Formats: sequence, structure tokens, C-alpha cells
Amino acid sequence: MNHEELEHFRKYREKMNEKILGSDHLGIKRFFNLDTQAYVDGALNTKTKEMLGLVASMVLRCDDCISYHILRCAEEKVNRAEMIEVFNVALVVGGSIVIPHMRRAFETMEQVLPE
Amino acid sequence: MNHEELEHFRKYREKMNEKILGSDHLGIKRFFNLDTQAYVDGALNTKTKEMLGLVASMVLRCDDCISYHILRCAEEKVNRAEMIEVFNVALVVGGSIVIPHMRRAFETMEQVLPE
Amino acid sequence: MNHEELEHFRKYREKMNEKILGSDHLGIKRFFNLDTQAYVDGALNTKTKEMLGLVASMVLRCDDCISYHILRCAEEKVNRAEMIEVFNVALVVGGSIVIPHMRRAFETMEQVLPE
Amino acid sequence: MNHEELEHFRKYREKMNEKILGSDHLGIKRFFNLDTQAYVDGALNTKTKEMLGLVASMVLRCDDCISYHILRCAEEKVNRAEMIEVFNVALVVGGSIVIPHMRRAFETMEQVLPE
Amino acid sequence: MNHEELEHFRKYREKMNEKILGSDHLGIKRFFNLDTQAYVDGALNTKTKEMLGLVASMVLRCDDCISYHILRCAEEKVNRAEMIEVFNVALVVGGSIVIPHMRRAFETMEQVLPE
Amino acid sequence: MNHEELEHFRKYREKMNEKILGSDHLGIKRFFNLDTQAYVDGALNTKTKEMLGLVASMVLRCDDCISYHILRCAEEKVNRAEMIEVFNVALVVGGSIVIPHMRRAFETMEQVLPE
Repeated sequence: MNHEELEHFRKYREKMNEKILGSDHLGIKRFFNLDTQAYVDGALNTKTKEMLGLVASMVLRCDDCISYHILRCAEEKVNRAEMIEVFNVALVVGGSIVIPHMRRAFETMEQVLPE
Repeated sequence: MNHEELEHFRKYREKMNEKILGSDHLGIKRFFNLDTQAYVDGALNTKTKEMLGLVASMVLRCDDCISYHILRCAEEKVNRAEMIEVFNVALVVGGSIVIPHMRRAFETMEQVLPE
Repeated sequence: MNHEELEHFRKYREKMNEKILGSDHLGIKRFFNLDTQAYVDGALNTKTKEMLGLVASMVLRCDDCISYHILRCAEEKVNRAEMIEVFNVALVVGGSIVIPHMRRAFETMEQVLPE
Repeated sequence: MNHEELEHFRKYREKMNEKILGSDHLGIKRFFNLDTQAYVDGALNTKTKEMLGLVASMVLRCDDCISYHILRCAEEKVNRAEMIEVFNVALVVGGSIVIPHMRRAFETMEQVLPE
Repeated sequence: MNHEELEHFRKYREKMNEKILGSDHLGIKRFFNLDTQAYVDGALNTKTKEMLGLVASMVLRCDDCISYHILRCAEEKVNRAEMIEVFNVALVVGGSIVIPHMRRAFETMEQVLPE
Repeated sequence: MNHEELEHFRKYREKMNEKILGSDHLGIKRFFNLDTQAYVDGALNTKTKEMLGLVASMVLRCDDCISYHILRCAEEKVNRAEMIEVFNVALVVGGSIVIPHMRRAFETMEQVLPE
């Protein structure tokens, strides 16, 4: 994603999460909470877990999820070389069908981890 | 997988990989080589990469791939608590459809990482 | 999808379906017909079938399909609380990877079923 | 699934769920709880929700999940004609790749809903 | 699949298709018919279409579908070298997650196209 | 994709591939090379292989991959009737979830293979 797409994603994500949680469906609220908890420091640290979230998002090919985990990985001090290794595992496991998502992932990485 | 299934998987994997590589298709041989190289120590260490391979296999729901990466994770000293954290990330990202694979993954873990 | 995206989807869907059917491929025509028939009242009523189509589209993560079935569900008098329950089942079965699609689904729902 | 496979599935499911929950991972326990809650009577009744779970499992092609929801649907008084309609929606949405799973689903249905 | 598994698949497929079609659901019957028609000689010949069916089954990772299309490809005079090329395209597009299915595909090929 | 989207795709693909390969990750470079080699004339000719790539991309539902293989198929003299047959196999194997991608594929085809 380029800068503008990334900004749009951040705002849209925030706005819609608020609406979804505002609907007061207990199951959905609990799921969102579980999702947050899954990446908290535990037997594995948050940095490792965010890389797990990133590779899972890449092989399942969800651009928004990929962008989100790239942002979080960068906050957790995953560096470019490490992130590209995550991309490579996703590429080998998931195949060439992952490439279009890797293009957008690379562009997102350039926003948050410039060379 | 239970003990017998795991033994069958190991032997079948070895036998068929030999046949596949014996067919001398250059592209397939190179792919197998790339696959091996993807988990070698680099910017990320092998232990982390094997956990990436495991979570990717779980969300894509491939039992053989899951068993293989559990075996490799155990060799790389991923402990039970860490492995269960990988299972949890896979469950949250991939949903309840992952559960039947997590059951078999848990059984495989018990073979290679008994409590 | 917001209002503009939804309008674009409706028009694009209509225009391209016409082109596809205009190509006179018998198999494709019959498939489109089967697809329509699958949601007609039978042992299950159309309302239930449209919710089945919606949950299937959500776990397979196809935004256009999701929008289409939300429109149809609303026509069949699925109310907001019911639709959110369908979203929840999709979320639990399909996992957090469904969330970005649920955000867009929620926005689509707000167009056709305002609070 | 035939009778023997279905019995094995039921026992294995119960045994491994116990082991998984016995590992005391809070996230996993909460996910299992959310999964159970998703099918409880609410804005939609349990019967409808179990059909949603079934169609989602079929298009995602998970045999264990399909068997589980067939058992639950039968308990909720989904009859054969209704269940076959769910199969048909799954087939149309998910395509011929669903057929091998529909064969096993049909065999499971014959166990729990004999003609 | 080995010889025994392949025989079981053929018989099970035949038996269950009969039961499914015997249920007299018009939509399902028409789908099965469409499925058969999709591989009949037309603008593309059956041999090419069966290879298309095979590669699609491999990237979607359905063992039964893969076995079926290998049998059909062999009947249409696809030779070993050609079939291995189809496997390679599936491997590159679908990634290492395809490998366990390629192992079973290779074994099936050895039954129907011995060296 | 319409003309403008197709032009954007071509340029973005070229620009980002350059960046990705410029990162000098050996595994990724080799994968891109393997991907190119998979479609070179061999036991199967390039035309057939590109149709295999197209059907695989359609059932996996990746719009960029679909556009790319449509462009390549047209260069390899796949005609409209043949391409529509590939679309039909993808539709039958992958189900109605493929339809939104087929709409965009049809539009792309009209750019490169006008009637």
C-alpha cells in the first residue's frame, strides 16, 4: 500500500471497528478481545507473535491484515531484513499466488521501514 | 497424529520425495531446494522460521505440513508453552475451522514433546 | 462498502453479467441459472438460503459476494440483529482474517438496513 | 463418514478437546467457549445457526467440521430435505471441489437421518 | 494414493454419487451434469481440459479430485512428462503446501502411468 | 479490469518487482526465476502452461494473477473461445465465488482480445 492507501486503511479500520463494537454483540466483542490478547507477551514475545500474524496473513492473502501486521511488526522492532525473511517463508509456503500481496506488502514496508 | 500415523508419515514422505526428485524435473528439484533453504538461519534464526512454517501450515490446514513443522520445531527447541502459543495464533487468525487440525497437532506434539 | 462503491458494484455486476451471458457459452449460462435457482424457496425458504449464501461468502472472503447477499438478505427481511449473528458465525468459523471483510460488510449493512 | 469413522471422530474429538483444554491456555479456552456460544439461540435460533455452521464448513472443506454440524443439525430437527438444500448451496458457492466432501457428508447424513 | 486407496476411492465415488443423484435434488443433478459437460471436447479438447481440472484440484488441495483427474488425464493420453509439468505449475502457483498432495499424486500417477 | 486498471497493474507490477528483486534476497530471487521457468516450453508448450496458470489463478481468486495470465495467454494466441472455456472450468471447479473474478477477467479479456 502507498502512503494514501495506508492512511485510508488506518482511519477506516478505526472507524469501522468502533461501529462493529458499538453494535454490542457479545460474541464479536469477545472475539476482538481474544484477537488482541493473542499477540501479547507470553511464552512467545510480541515481536515473534506479530511475525506469526504476518506470515499467516500473507499465506491467507488478506491485504488489510498484512498491512496491519507490518505496522505492528515495525513497532516491535522487526527490521527490514527480518521482515523480508517473513515474506520469503510466506512465498515458499503459499506460492506465486502470494506475489501480488508481497508487492503491496513491500510498498507498505517502505512506508514504515524506509532503507 | 498418533505414533503409528507419524511413523507412516515420515516413511511415506521420505519414499515419495525420493521418487519425485528421481523424476529429474529441474523446476521441482529447485523448488524443493528453495523450500529447504527458506528455514536456514539468516536474518531470522531457524527456530523462528520453523514457527512461521508451523503457523502458516495451520491456517492453510495441511496436516502433513503441520506434523513436519512440529517435528522440526521440537528439534529446534521450541518448548510446549511456545508451541501452544503458535497454535493459539493459528486458531485466532484461522478460526474454528482450524480446530480439527489443532487436535491432530496436539497429539503430534505429545509424541515429540511429552509433558 | 460505502454508497458509491455499492452503486458501482451494482452497475458493474449488471453490465458484466450481460457480457458474460452474451458470450453464449452454454455451460456458463447454465451455471448462472443454477446459481439463481439455489436460493429459490424450497425445503428451506429464500431468507434462510440467503443467510447461508452470506455466511459462505464471508468465510471464503469475497467482498462482492458478501455485498450481494447482504442486499438480498435485506430484501428477504433479515433484520440487523439477525445479520450480525450471521457475521458472528462467519467470524468464529473463519477467524480474524474475516475481520476486514466484516468491516466492509458492516458498512454495506448500514446502507441497506440503517438503524 | 461411515458408522465406524463417525464413532472414531466422536471419541477422538472428545479426548483431544479435553487435552487441549487441559493445557490451560486461556486464549484457547476462551476461543472454545466463543465457538460454543456462537450457536446458542439468539436473534437467530440454534437450528438456523447450525445450518450456517454446516454450509461454512462445507465451502471451507473440513470433513470433521462437516460431520460435527450434521450431527448437531440432526439434533436440532433439520430434516433430510433441508440438509440436502444446505449441501446444494455449498455446492453452488464452492464448486465441484466440494463434491468429495459432499459424498462423505451424505454418508454421515445417512447415519443420523436414515430415510 | 496406492493401489488399494485408489480402488477404494473409485468404488466409494461410484456408490456415493449414485446415492446423491438418487436423492433427486434437481440443483445437485444439474450441477453434476454441468461438471461432466465442462470437460467435453469444445474450443479446447478434453485432454487440455482434464489438465486444467488437475492443476485446479492441486492448488485447491483436494486429494480425491486430484486422483480423479489423474485417472482421466491418463485416459486422454497425457504422458508422464506432461503430467509432471502440470504438477510443477501447481507447485509454483500453490507453494510448498501443495507438496503433500503432490506426493500422493505421484503415487497415483505410478499406478496409471508406470514408467 | 478496465483499461486504466490494467495499465496501473502493469506499471505497478514492474515497479514493485524491481524493488523486490533489488532487495537481493536470494530465496525470493530464485523463486521469481522458478516462476518464470515454469511457463517455458517443455513437455507442455507455453500456451498450455499459461492456460494452466490462468485456471489456477481463477480458482484461487487472485485478480492480479488472473490479469497477468490473460495477457500472457493472449500473447500465446489463446483465442476468445478457448479463454472462455478456461473460465468455465474455473467456474465449475471453484463455484459461484469465482463469478466476481470472472467479471473482471471478462473485462480484461475484452482489452486484449476484442471481438
